[in-house]
Parts: sequence; C-alpha cells; structure tokens
Amino acid sequence: MKSLVVKATVALLAATFGMGTALAAESLQDVMKRRGLSQQDLMAAAKTYTPTGKRDEFVAFSSGGQSGQIIVYGIPSMRILKYLAVFTPEPWQGYGYDEESKEILKGGWIEGKEITWGDSHHPAISETNGKYDGQFLFINDKANPRIAVVDLRDYETKQIVANPIFKSEHGGAFVTPNTEYVIETAQYAAPLEGKKFYPLEEFNEKYRGGITYWKFDRTAGRIDVAKSFSVEFPPYSQDISDAGKGPSDGWSFSNSFCSERYVGGIERGRPPFEAGCSAKDTDYLHMVNWKKAAELVAQGKAKKINGHNVLMMDTAVKEGVLFLIPEPKSPHGVDVTPDGKFIIVSGKLDTHVSVYSFEKIMAVIKAGKFESKDPYGIPVIGMKDALHKQVALGLGPLHTQFDSKKCIAYTSLYVDSQVAKWNFCDGKVLDKISVHYNIGHLMTMEGDAVDPKGRYLVALNKLSIDRFNPVGPLHPQNHQLIDISNEKMQLLYDMPLPMGEPHYAVAIEASKLKPGVRYKVGTNSRTDKPHPGAVRAGEERTERKGNKVTVYGTLIRSHITPEIIEAEVGDEVTIYLTNLERAQDETHGFTVSTYNVHASIEPGKTASVKFKADREGVYPYYCTEFCSALHLEMQGYLLVKPKGWKPSAKKEIAKATYTEKDYQAKLKAIAETQAVIDTVVGFITSTNFKDFPDVVAMVEDATDQLGKIPDAKAKHEAAAAKKDWEQAMLWAEQVFQYQVKAADIGLRAKTYLEQKGAKKIK
Amino acid sequence: MKSLVVKATVALLAATFGMGTALAAESLQDVMKRRGLSQQDLMAAAKTYTPTGKRDEFVAFSSGGQSGQIIVYGIPSMRILKYLAVFTPEPWQGYGYDEESKEILKGGWIEGKEITWGDSHHPAISETNGKYDGQFLFINDKANPRIAVVDLRDYETKQIVANPIFKSEHGGAFVTPNTEYVIETAQYAAPLEGKKFYPLEEFNEKYRGGITYWKFDRTAGRIDVAKSFSVEFPPYSQDISDAGKGPSDGWSFSNSFCSERYVGGIERGRPPFEAGCSAKDTDYLHMVNWKKAAELVAQGKAKKINGHNVLMMDTAVKEGVLFLIPEPKSPHGVDVTPDGKFIIVSGKLDTHVSVYSFEKIMAVIKAGKFESKDPYGIPVIGMKDALHKQVALGLGPLHTQFDSKKCIAYTSLYVDSQVAKWNFCDGKVLDKISVHYNIGHLMTMEGDAVDPKGRYLVALNKLSIDRFNPVGPLHPQNHQLIDISNEKMQLLYDMPLPMGEPHYAVAIEASKLKPGVRYKVGTNSRTDKPHPGAVRAGEERTERKGNKVTVYGTLIRSHITPEIIEAEVGDEVTIYLTNLERAQDETHGFTVSTYNVHASIEPGKTASVKFKADREGVYPYYCTEFCSALHLEMQGYLLVKPKGWKPSAKKEIAKATYTEKDYQAKLKAIAETQAVIDTVVGFITSTNFKDFPDVVAMVEDATDQLGKIPDAKAKHEAAAAKKDWEQAMLWAEQVFQYQVKAADIGLRAKTYLEQKGAKKIK
Repeated sequence: MKSLVVKATVALLAATFGMGTALAAESLQDVMKRRGLSQQDLMAAAKTYTPTGKRDEFVAFSSGGQSGQIIVYGIPSMRILKYLAVFTPEPWQGYGYDEESKEILKGGWIEGKEITWGDSHHPAISETNGKYDGQFLFINDKANPRIAVVDLRDYETKQIVANPIFKSEHGGAFVTPNTEYVIETAQYAAPLEGKKFYPLEEFNEKYRGGITYWKFDRTAGRIDVAKSFSVEFPPYSQDISDAGKGPSDGWSFSNSFCSERYVGGIERGRPPFEAGCSAKDTDYLHMVNWKKAAELVAQGKAKKINGHNVLMMDTAVKEGVLFLIPEPKSPHGVDVTPDGKFIIVSGKLDTHVSVYSFEKIMAVIKAGKFESKDPYGIPVIGMKDALHKQVALGLGPLHTQFDSKKCIAYTSLYVDSQVAKWNFCDGKVLDKISVHYNIGHLMTMEGDAVDPKGRYLVALNKLSIDRFNPVGPLHPQNHQLIDISNEKMQLLYDMPLPMGEPHYAVAIEASKLKPGVRYKVGTNSRTDKPHPGAVRAGEERTERKGNKVTVYGTLIRSHITPEIIEAEVGDEVTIYLTNLERAQDETHGFTVSTYNVHASIEPGKTASVKFKADREGVYPYYCTEFCSALHLEMQGYLLVKPKGWKPSAKKEIAKATYTEKDYQAKLKAIAETQAVIDTVVGFITSTNFKDFPDVVAMVEDATDQLGKIPDAKAKHEAAAAKKDWEQAMLWAEQVFQYQVKAADIGLRAKTYLEQKGAKKIK
Repeated sequence: MKSLVVKATVALLAATFGMGTALAAESLQDVMKRRGLSQQDLMAAAKTYTPTGKRDEFVAFSSGGQSGQIIVYGIPSMRILKYLAVFTPEPWQGYGYDEESKEILKGGWIEGKEITWGDSHHPAISETNGKYDGQFLFINDKANPRIAVVDLRDYETKQIVANPIFKSEHGGAFVTPNTEYVIETAQYAAPLEGKKFYPLEEFNEKYRGGITYWKFDRTAGRIDVAKSFSVEFPPYSQDISDAGKGPSDGWSFSNSFCSERYVGGIERGRPPFEAGCSAKDTDYLHMVNWKKAAELVAQGKAKKINGHNVLMMDTAVKEGVLFLIPEPKSPHGVDVTPDGKFIIVSGKLDTHVSVYSFEKIMAVIKAGKFESKDPYGIPVIGMKDALHKQVALGLGPLHTQFDSKKCIAYTSLYVDSQVAKWNFCDGKVLDKISVHYNIGHLMTMEGDAVDPKGRYLVALNKLSIDRFNPVGPLHPQNHQLIDISNEKMQLLYDMPLPMGEPHYAVAIEASKLKPGVRYKVGTNSRTDKPHPGAVRAGEERTERKGNKVTVYGTLIRSHITPEIIEAEVGDEVTIYLTNLERAQDETHGFTVSTYNVHASIEPGKTASVKFKADREGVYPYYCTEFCSALHLEMQGYLLVKPKGWKPSAKKEIAKATYTEKDYQAKLKAIAETQAVIDTVVGFITSTNFKDFPDVVAMVEDATDQLGKIPDAKAKHEAAAAKKDWEQAMLWAEQVFQYQVKAADIGLRAKTYLEQKGAKKIK
C-alpha cells in the first residue's frame, strides 16, 4: 500500500483547477431557454448572484419569529449566514446545552420559571447619533416579555432581561438615537403586579399597558436593569414603537389597537376579539417625552412595582410627558422619518398612511390646545391639528421604511400584497409592486436610521403558498428582495425562510461590521472575561472533591485532553474545555454519549458542560465538528464505575506490537512529508502572501501545528532509546499527524493564493 | 376617516404591477462591471437563479449535524426550504413544546433518560427496487445512537428509536434496496449490555462494535422494533455502511478505523487516540449477508441483549454471514456502485480509492480461500483477491458518489480540498476541481441509487473561512454546487449553511415528492390518526374534572375559541386545538405567556399543549403566526385565580357604547365591501382559474370565509331586532371581517392569475 506522502508531491504537482479552464457546453442563451429565464430574470440573477469568495454589500438581521432566534443573511445574495441563538436552546451552538449559555437563558427566567420558548419580533441595531454603528443588536420576545442583547463582535447573546411588569410585549426592541435606551411596549393589557389575578370585569380599572425604557450601558455592553424604568399606559393594546430623532429626539411614539378596551368571549356568545377590537375608526398614538420621564424617575417620582420604577399615568400627565393623538385604524407601524420631522402611522384597516408633523404636535402641546382627554385623563391632541398629510395607499398598510432619497418612503400593504413607493412630503404615490404574498414588515437598507442607504428593499411576506417546492403543510416564509435604485421597483429574488416566521428585519452596510474570528485563549464568551476553568496545554487535569469530579481539559486538532475521564455512579461531573486553536474556523464541539450535553468551542473559547453521572457504563465522548481528517479519532471515554469499584486484577491496557522496523518506516514517512511541507512553504513564501490576511492566519495555524512536533519528537526518540517500539512508533505517528495537518492548511493556502492571483515576489 | 372599502375599488382598479413595466437603468454589462462578475459568473448565475414562482429540479435533504435536524434545500437554487425537526426541540414547529411531538422525542429517550440533543449524520431516502421513491426519510444520531423516521407526505418526524446495545453510532442511516431494513453501525466500541461498566483494560474482550438492521414496515410507516436485529462486530470503530444492490443485494458493507483497538490516554503520557488509531496501513471492511442473518435470527440463533436480538460473532462466523477484507487506511466512505458490482472504499489517510469486486469476493467465499482470521475468528479475505482496481486520487479521499454516465464516480479529497472525477471501471482520473474548503461528504443527484441522475454535485465543505461575510468566530459551513453535466466540472454556487455542520445529504428529483398541504380535519400528525382532542366548529368547550382543566378549542382566522380560559392555581391545564382552515399555508401557532408552550397547527391538524397553572395571574394567549391582517387580535386570556376565588360583586365585562347609527354605518360598509368582492369574483370567474390548482384552493378558502357570514348575520339581525346595538354592531363588524379576509384571498388570487397569464374565458 502506498502511503499518504508518496503520492503527496505528485498530487501537488498534478493539481488542476477545473474552474479556470472549464468550457461550457451550453451557451448562455441555451441555458436561459432551458431554464425559462427572461432577460429581466438574467438581470435579476446578475444583480444578486455572488460568486465564491465575494462578499455581500449588506448584512440583514431578521427576527426568527417562533424559533426565538435571529437569522443573519447577506444582501443581495440572500444567503443565510447564521442562525443566532437568543431565546431558545440552539443545539449546534451548544446554547442551552453548555453551562455558560444556560446562565444567559437563566437571565430570562420569569420570576424563577424556566422559559425555553420565545417569539422574537423586532431586532434593532445600536445607533450613534441616529446612525447604525454595528456594535450591538437587540431583540424582544413577545410571548414572555424579554429583551436580549447580542454583541456583534462575536455574534453571541450576552444578556436576556425579563420585563418585570408586562405579560406580553410586541413593540420592542427600538433604540434611541444614541442607544441610551432600548424601548419595549406592552401588547395585551394585564395587571402590572405580576402574579396577581383581577377578573376581566375589572379590565378598565386594573389591567394596564405600558412602555419600558431599558438603560443600555455601552461600555459594559449590557442593559443596566437598575437604571431602567417604565411608564404606565392605559389598557389599549400597544403595538409598535419608534424613537424620535433630530428635532423629535427625546420622544418616543407607540401606536395601539383595541383602544375599544374590548374583551372577547366567542364561546360565551360574545363577538370575538377581532370584531370588538376593530370596531372603531381610530385608536391612539402614544407620545412620551422619555428624556423628561427619566428625569422624573431620577427625582423619585416613580412607583416601585415588582422592584421596578414605573412612572404612573397620573404623574406622567401632571408632569406633561404623556400625550395621545387619534390614529386610524388598528395600526401596526409607527415610523419616524429620517429627518425626525414626521411620524408616519399605518392603520392596517384603513387605506391611508397618516403623516403627523412633530412641529405641529409641539405647537399644540405648547399652546395646551387639546381636543379632549381619554378615560384616564391623558390629553388628546386633535388629529387635524397634528396631521401633515394623509395618503391613500391601498388595502392593509402596515409598515413604512425610508429611502436615501429625500421624502421617499415605502409602505407594505398586507391585503393588497404590494409595496407602495410614495413621497411623504407631498403625499404622492409613485409606484407599486406586487409581492408574494401578504407582506408584513418591510425593510430598506438602514431604513430606520437618520441616513438610510437606499438600493434594496426586502418584503417580509407571510404566506409563500406556491413560490417554492412544496415541503408539507408548514411552508417557509418568503423574503423578497426588491431593487429600489431606479424609479420603478424591480423584484430581484425570492428567499425562502426555512424556520420561524420572521416579523421584522434590519440591514446594515457590511463594512460597518467587524466581528472577530477568535477569542483570547481562555475566554468565557458569555461574560467576555477570562474563564476560571481555562487551562493551557500541559495544565490539563481531573480533580475530585467528594462526589464532584472536575475536569480541566483542552481541545486541539485532533485530540481531547484528557482522553479518559473516570467517575463513579452519582458523581457530579463538570468538564471545562479550552480550544487551544488559533486558526480561523477551527471550532471543536464536545458531547458525551447519553448525557445530553453539547458545547461549541470556537478558537480560544472556554466552555463547560455539567451532568450527574447517574448511570453506570462506558460513554464515548468526541469532537462533534469535522475539524480535521482525523476528527473521528478525536475521542475519549467517560467511565462511570459502580461506587467503590476496584479492578479484580492488575492488568494494563492492551498494547499494540510495533517493531523497530515500523518505527523506522514511520521516520521515513516523516522525512518525506517534511519535503512536501517544504515545497508548499517554498511556494507560499515565494509569493506576496502577507497581502492576504486569510493566508497569514493559515500560515500562523500551520506553524502552530509544526510547533507541536519537537515535544512529540523528543518522546519518540526517548522511547526508541529505550527500545520501547510501541511508544516510539506511536509518538512518531503523532509527529506525522502534526505534519499532515500542517500540510492540509498549507495546501489550502496554496490553492487560495493561486486562485486569488497572488504575485511571485522572488 | 375614509374606511377600508371606500378606497378598495379604487385600489383594485389602480393596481399597477411594477415587474412587467420596470425599465432597468443599468445595462447587464453595467451590472456585471459594478459587481465584478465574469462571463463565467454570469453563466453560473443563469444556471442557478430561480425566478419567483419557478421550482427547483431537485430537493436535497441534508443532515443538520449538531442541530440534530434535517435541512431541506432546492437544487440548483440552493435555497433552504425548511429545517425539519428530528432529534432536538424546534420551537417554530412546536417540536418538543406540544404534547404530540413530545411523545415522538420520548421514543428516543435512552432507558428512561430524556435526550434533547442529537448529532444527526446521514440521511437516507426510502427505495423501491434500489430507486429513490420519495416516501420516507431516515436519519441517525451519532451521539445517542438513534434512528428517526420522517414521512415525506408532511415532512414530519413520526418515530425515533433508540439503539438498545450501542453507545455511539456513525454509520447510519442506510437502506436496503426495497427499504426492508434501515442500517446503522456502531462507532466507538463499548460494552453491549447498556448500563454496564468494564474497565478499558478489558477492551479487547468486553468492548464491541456492531451493526443493527431496523426492520421497516412501509405500510405502517414505522420501524418494527421487535423484528429488528443486530450483528455483533469486533471492537474496531466501524464507520460508514452501504447496502448492496443488484448482484450484491442481500449484503451490507461497513468499513472501520482503529482496528488497532488502540486506547489513548494523552493525559497519562500515552500517545493520543489519533496516533494509535491511525498507525497501521489497513483496517477492515466488514461484510454481512443480512438476508441470511435475518433468517438465522428468525430461527432463534440470536442472543437477547437488552431484549434485542443480537447475532453473536461466533454464530455469524459459523453460519458464514460475516467476513472481513483489509482496506487502506482509516477509511470513511464505502459506496456500492449503481450496478452493484463494485464496492469503493476511500482510505482517508491513503491517496487511493480501492475498488473491490463483488464477484471476486464471492468467488473467494465460495472457494473458502481466506487469507487469515482476525483475532475474533472472522475470516479475512485477501485484499488482492478482492480488488478490482486501486486508483490514486489525491490527499484524504473520503466519499464517493456516482454519475448517470456509466463508470463515472466523484470522490471528495479532504486534505486537497478537491473533488476528483474518475472512472471506476478503467481506473482513470478524468478531472479535478478545487472546493472551499476541506470537503467531507459529497453528493450527486440520487447518487446512492441504482439510477443516479447526474447533472449536479454538491460538495459538503467543512470550513468556509473566507467565503462569506464574517459572522463571528463560529462560521457557517459551505455547500458548493458543481455542474457535472460537461466533461469538466464547473463550480456554480457557494451556499452557506447557517446552523449545524451537515455531514451528509441526499437529493431526489423534485417530481418524485408529492407532499400534502393540509390534513384531514382533526388529525394527530404524529400518529396519522384522528386526534381524540379534535372538535368541529361549535363543539368547543372547557371541561373540569377535579384539578384537571381540559379545553377543546379551535383556530380559524382570526379567532381562537375559547377566548377566555379559567383555571385555579395548581390546576393541570390541557388545551387541544384544531385548525379549521382548509386554505394552504394558513397555519396558526399557539402560545400562552410565561407557560412555555408552543404549537404550530397547520390546516386540519389537532395539537395540544399541557402545563401546570402554578402561578396566579392573567396570561394572554395568542396566535403566533401572522395569519391575517387581524392576527394580533387573535388572542385570549388564561385567568389563573387563587384557589376558591369568588367575585366580590356581580359585575359584567364593560360594554362599548355603540348606537343604531354605528350599526347602520357598518351595514353600509358591508354592502360596499360586497361590491368589491363581487368585482373580484367576477374577474376570477371570467378566467380559466380552474386550470390553476393554487387559485382553486384560494377560491375554496375565500368561499369558506364567506360561508361563515350567515351565522354572524343572523346574530346581528337578531340583536338589532332587540335594539341591542352593541351586539348588533359587533356581529356586523364580524361579518365585515369575514368579508375582508375573503377579499384578501380574492385579491391574492387575482394577482396570481394576472401574473401567470390566465386567459379570459367569458
């Protein structure tokens, strides 16, 4: 049998790259005809197709809906880059299966109750001066009112906070222009006192809505719970919110439906919620002066409910921080224009969008000329006094986003299944495009910010029906990419969303995102701090204290240290694992058969799993990533012995019978492999490889693998000196394995350089 | 305020469809220049871009790796169509959050231990006469050895069975040519007796591998556990398997690594597993005559271990059903050629693929001319006696798939990061293409079957490194689509895999899949049987027995019946929900605030959630799908009262004050809306809409909504007769809501017909 190395050089020299020389048998016209593509389809293909290695212009963060997660995708390629675990366990990332992420999820427990399900709705990117800064991402859970903080340096969820007074929450997360606060608004009214029952007969008196302002500490990268507060709202079902900007900075706007305060009961012969909650022609836009509200809270004017500061309605009214304006009809979106001058409300059961003038509203407030008060004494500003324009767009307007071009807005029309392009300054409708089907939210590039980027719009369609190959009764959603750079909108791409029903998405220029590819060795990625369980190579150990077994282990291609873990039935086992790799993408995973744990441990990360060894037996553990050619050999055994078990006789683990000849053959293979490595190194160093950061990282990684050789070499030489041929042969084999891994990376680097057109420099 | 209907007709008439008339400001050349696309890129775009509404040629089922799920995507568009929940909870689908799916997951518990994590590896599509039939899908869990059965009629997991004797399992699932059995092979050797400890010093004597043949009952669509059996193997780490076909039907082939039986212990100064397990030049291909083995088991020649039939090695050897052949070196893939004549093994640490001749092997067995026996007495067939060819392909050959063209195979090269195209009949290498990077498995279209379809190949690359926009230290995987219809392979598309590391995938012609879009009303989708908790409209009720509260509810746009559920603290609450919709894609979801349950209920399905109402308070529940314009109003309240709570005074739920004028206005709106509906109906029925099954389904759905009107109309008229204007107004509003939903569907159908070029027929 020819060994690996004998053919290695040949393979290197013979390597051909199909791409460059391929001759297409079909012409472009043939392909278009065969696939039924029009010229317009070809144009759309050219506008979205992103060849291997090329990057997307924008990165979108979409709520994962009922998956409780965030979906990250690229625009215009519309390829999903990552599911980011937030409110629900995510097995790949070990989220909810390792101890560090369990701590994050625990932050979202509600009064001690474990919550493993979430309904993520509205993501928001942190802002500086009203511009997306790409540092943090926030998202809410509607079902169990919570807000999560994601750090975009590593795309990991760092914190979940549970709302102390709400029972549901749809209108979050929205940020103020400098991310001073993350806003969330209640949805279905309920008593604010948590675990307190009041009958529905006391709905008007005891049930409440509200808005919470979570204080964000940018330095810590975490919400400061103690400095956060809420404002009590009437029991109208509040919906979406938005923060003011520019002239309206300091204010927040929240719309509502069911201001009828209707309680359904179809099973009792009462008309259902849907009838009673949509009976009247107007609901209320809620306006809060949050800057002043924060001052009032600081002055001690809030009431403590469940330990949380709540500015009650009477105080808010008395101090002039809370106002209402009628808005048509059961609206969904409220969107402040990039210049901060207008607030656009879409009444989903009205054909209009209503454009309110912040200037007019301020004039009314200044003059004190209110139309009326609502049943809770909140001043109501006359709609006519506040309106700039009303524009008839079509059936079921839901949500509005903005263009880079002045005054241009796009509004989704749910019932019409269309997007309307219109001018919010002069009220003219400019274009419409059909989508497939039933669009909810839409998004333009940085379309929430003071400086939208234009170019693309994504329609977040709720029903995909016939758009894709059928996959059973539960269909994907459909995000449609639309080109908005021209006068007429052009549909570019249909993207199925394979899990969850994304409610809203935000997109940012890719160049603003600068995530890392590795951690400082020994980092707890959930706290961003050194992990107390981290060890360096050579420091691995297993400690026993009473019935607690603690393993301090490491991972590196292709072995887990330790490879044997011993416990007794009933022991509590904790395994800390540090990934010693420095190479990009060299993640290792870890699981133990039957013990239901998993951790995904990226380069430099330390994570841990913990379980009770409650059953006797032999349980393999292994690296769950295909991390190298020998990934299957990256294994170990957890031995769970009966209590007090002793070996019946002194016996050693069986040895293989290797001879000096085997050892010498292996030394020869090592020498040959080194020649291959030298060739590859020669090629790489003959080019301007230092101009390619990815190759520099690969070289670093290969060097790291080669750096492990001296230790293994010393071991095989020492064993050979003692004529222990088994040990000599196996440590020599280990040297060979380090070589193979280095060669693997080297070949990858060589291919990369050849394909990217690296230059010869010597 | 103008109401919805006033503008509806206008909107209908004014509707413009941007697509047809859009004029591109840039030329195709401009776009290519701006985006840096070559002519070859444009060709690749044309070969993969799939315009809205067009379907993919093939559907791929990829293992979800550490996500424990299956990823469904289309080829050539490479768009992910669905994540299909299998071994791990999946919150969107309610999998692990509703009672029916919990029962499926419970089937995969190991000796009573709940397992919520899985490492799915190799999917397999059911076969008839060696051809993919598109009926069922199987997949294994490596970590906690289990096999799952998915029904491709509804893309739901129907069964999980836990292996009774293994502790890990990599080589599954593979099916025999008529899906008689689903095969899985153990990986890391361990004692077969389950919860039994033997020390590693007794590895050679007490640790074992094995292969399990799960009997599949196609009529039931389930594995028949009692009729399943295993064959004991030596403690070599078995890896991939494949079933014979054609002349080799009745046999199965499993390769192995670490036939050195090496036990690592790097922390004890012993060379690691990776060194000891890859020290020798050959491992063993295991061959089992499964047809004869099944007969032996039927004859009572198996031993019962953990209640499961295991054919022990000594019996298997004595009866002539188990043989070994040396194979180079630590192989991964074993692949039987479409004609069933050859078995191709890829030794990942050897540069060759080895092509064994089934005919030669049979000749050796017939002649009884074995080379030797292994330490367990299994006859070893001489490699030279069994080989047809050995072909040097490159570094790290892993897995082989087949073309529709005779003798043509494709093998992945992990270390070279290439795919090799070669001829297994004459042993010639024909082409190579670089992939990015480190390819594990690959797949061609129906490339496992007796009749592979050619056309495309997908490279399942393990490291994506620099291919996509960066998303933190944990990267996506990269599935690369390669055109194999020409002599030279051409790279077409890079597809990031956003969750999990897919190990293997299978693809089938889309035309073979015929999934349903709805269930018969009241179906438990996990058992395929009528659900005892199902009710029809009007039969909804809440029952109390002791502290058990049982709700028999229904869901339909846009209300949940009942809308109020009452319980006392400590009650056990079960909520059965039947989706009454008949419309495609009209899924409703259900959750209750704080109580951590979720169900996804597709049209016709009945599902249930169950929880202990352990905390007092008011908990909103709602439909979690954006199912209609009024989806937010699809809500209700769970009231959890203190034990024995009584209202302090008789009080009714507050009424709204509607007048006869409000009622009359609503009647006017209803009349106007009916006019709109009539227009739409007129348009639809003037076309050949019956030629469009999707439109027929929409019409059925709209008719269904309109069919609800008479009941609500009777109610508003009865209330008006009694001058109960609140009830009259609200039931009239309900009529209006039904109209709006019917109009919504009608408009969607109209757009569909216009875009698909429906013909006027009157």
